[in-house]
Amino acid sequence: MKLVENNVCAPKGFSALGKIVGIKKSGKMDFAVLFSDVPADAAAVYTSNKVKGAPLIVTKEHLQDGKAQAIVVNSGIANVCTGKKGIEDAREIAASAAKELHIGAEDVLVASTGLIGAYLPMDRLLSGIKGIRNELKKEKHDAAKAIMTTDLYEKEIAVKSENFTIGAIAKGAGMVHPNMATMLCFITTDAKIPADKLKKFLKSSVDKSFNMISVDMDMSTSDMAVILANGHAGSADEKKFQQALDFVCIEMAKKIARDGEGATKLIEVEAKNAKTAEDARKIARSVITSNLVKCAFFGNDPNWGRIMSAVGSSGAEFNESLMDIHFGNVQIVSRGAAAAFDFRKVQDIMKKDCLKITLDMKQGRENAKAYGCDMTYDYVKINAVYHT
Amino acid sequence: MKLVENNVCAPKGFSALGKIVGIKKSGKMDFAVLFSDVPADAAAVYTSNKVKGAPLIVTKEHLQDGKAQAIVVNSGIANVCTGKKGIEDAREIAASAAKELHIGAEDVLVASTGLIGAYLPMDRLLSGIKGIRNELKKEKHDAAKAIMTTDLYEKEIAVKSENFTIGAIAKGAGMVHPNMATMLCFITTDAKIPADKLKKFLKSSVDKSFNMISVDMDMSTSDMAVILANGHAGSADEKKFQQALDFVCIEMAKKIARDGEGATKLIEVEAKNAKTAEDARKIARSVITSNLVKCAFFGNDPNWGRIMSAVGSSGAEFNESLMDIHFGNVQIVSRGAAAAFDFRKVQDIMKKDCLKITLDMKQGRENAKAYGCDMTYDYVKINAVYHT
Repeated sequence: MKLVENNVCAPKGFSALGKIVGIKKSGKMDFAVLFSDVPADAAAVYTSNKVKGAPLIVTKEHLQDGKAQAIVVNSGIANVCTGKKGIEDAREIAASAAKELHIGAEDVLVASTGLIGAYLPMDRLLSGIKGIRNELKKEKHDAAKAIMTTDLYEKEIAVKSENFTIGAIAKGAGMVHPNMATMLCFITTDAKIPADKLKKFLKSSVDKSFNMISVDMDMSTSDMAVILANGHAGSADEKKFQQALDFVCIEMAKKIARDGEGATKLIEVEAKNAKTAEDARKIARSVITSNLVKCAFFGNDPNWGRIMSAVGSSGAEFNESLMDIHFGNVQIVSRGAAAAFDFRKVQDIMKKDCLKITLDMKQGRENAKAYGCDMTYDYVKINAVYHT
Repeated sequence: MKLVENNVCAPKGFSALGKIVGIKKSGKMDFAVLFSDVPADAAAVYTSNKVKGAPLIVTKEHLQDGKAQAIVVNSGIANVCTGKKGIEDAREIAASAAKELHIGAEDVLVASTGLIGAYLPMDRLLSGIKGIRNELKKEKHDAAKAIMTTDLYEKEIAVKSENFTIGAIAKGAGMVHPNMATMLCFITTDAKIPADKLKKFLKSSVDKSFNMISVDMDMSTSDMAVILANGHAGSADEKKFQQALDFVCIEMAKKIARDGEGATKLIEVEAKNAKTAEDARKIARSVITSNLVKCAFFGNDPNWGRIMSAVGSSGAEFNESLMDIHFGNVQIVSRGAAAAFDFRKVQDIMKKDCLKITLDMKQGRENAKAYGCDMTYDYVKINAVYHT
């Protein structure tokens, strides 16, 4: 498996575009299209929030047959809490793009991200959709940029493994939380994989990646991860495919965590040797979502008491008097109590832009990793002023 | 029912003290004693965090007989994650105070709040305990001040209803979350109520108050609410007693929420007309705990999309297309979509130091209120630097 260029355009038969249609006040790119030259097998995983965006509802309908050929995405407005009109708008976008691309409307998936409760400027969107067929190409970064909201940088990757290639772009910076919260990830591959298997592979990768990140506790209304497999590279070894898809999704999840609103560093929490896999996941996620832990990380303060407290409220089975905690390679806690450690050495570790925390539960053999970031003044600033 | 002075000392037969024993580096008061002149019926509710402080373990033991006569509290160090030595220390504090007060050690309850993972300075504590019997008096604010950590002001109340009086002091500013997270509340009454009933009344009041506040998502390891009833005023009407206790606990909960670390305002979220009582509680709590909602409140931004999203991730049954939202008396959302409202008028409402949000679910007849605060730069600042 090796990294290659061109993200979603790396697999055979895929093209993309990113452009300005005029939704964002900033004047930045706000519209993207991903396209496969033949109908592809397709699968998706959606937000668990009960309030669901209109695009998500339409995408779900269009994916019922397990086939899709294009994904049309806008940023700036999420088209959520917009009632019947919102759903009609999402349908019209799909239909209009389908007409331009000479495919069926049910083969177009739609996604929107941005402000909740506002209507899409349909005139500008429909003007922007005109002529997209000729604008599609093997492009490098435009689609990744056009789906950004408060993201500071584009999130993209492509890997080649055996005979197939997998590419992905993603967005997500605020409202990112376990259970697929405000993030979008679009994955393309030229491997030949039927839709039902694709769904299984995607679900498995998402559980190890996007469901293990947290920037804050809020689950978004619009999140989805979608994969299109157009078959140009022929059948793939299933194990190798799952491995490659895991890698792609975990790398994208880390990029999202590192780009958490206001974040200064990526934090990786591994819960090792938990009693059950679910306990390991609960512990890692409880620590990564604790505001107090995240503030301490911003302050480069090895406040392990807050970690113990977060583990205690995780709902997992554990015995605190067995637990060890390491920050990087320095042991902070030994059998549930303070270890003697060099405070300066730990602070140096905490000041790096990637901090690894390991919790050894000594209760069993199950491990899980969660990814997040520190909580900073800028997190508050960004979220106190972000509005229409 | 009317407000009276002297908080925990207001009911007949109770005295208290607050003093400096030298645990806090700031040199502020860090030690308090509450005392009843006769053994009292007693009950407590504890944190649900699986990591429990040593004082909590000892208090639980001493409360097994439903009787207590004194509560001894220190602030500055929580005596949590301190292993066997922590428990021995807590026992020694109780025994030493009991000796001074001429009562049995099992009638002394102990509580500690502050930093996790450090040992108590036992020499200073034991010196401080010497002579407490002569220092106890009908005092006004000292005990309330001595139990503070990052609290900005003391939290105290007393009410007289019918023949009985109830008084309370509390602390809590950070790590405050539903399910009794880092807060202490000590309640005294001269009503005569047997311990088993006292427990039932306390649990019911806590569910409406301390379990409905949130400053952040972290559950503490040391929280407890304790009530002592010494019977000097004779039997009380049970309904009146529950009403008075509810009032005392809700007022203390609001004071804690308003004093949330870095908070600039108190926020009260009421979920009305939910299908079930549990749904109403879930909805109110999900909104009050959302970082994004809290940041928007700090920015005086009526970002109702974040509220909808928080309701959607609450796990409660609801129909978004029925929902109305009011900020104060201004309707922001009508049947799940934006209502036409005067932005300036809403901003004026949001700028006040107490903001009331009402969510009308129109799904049934159950209501619940939750209390919290906004999230600010100072929240991050306080929690990035608080350390030994």
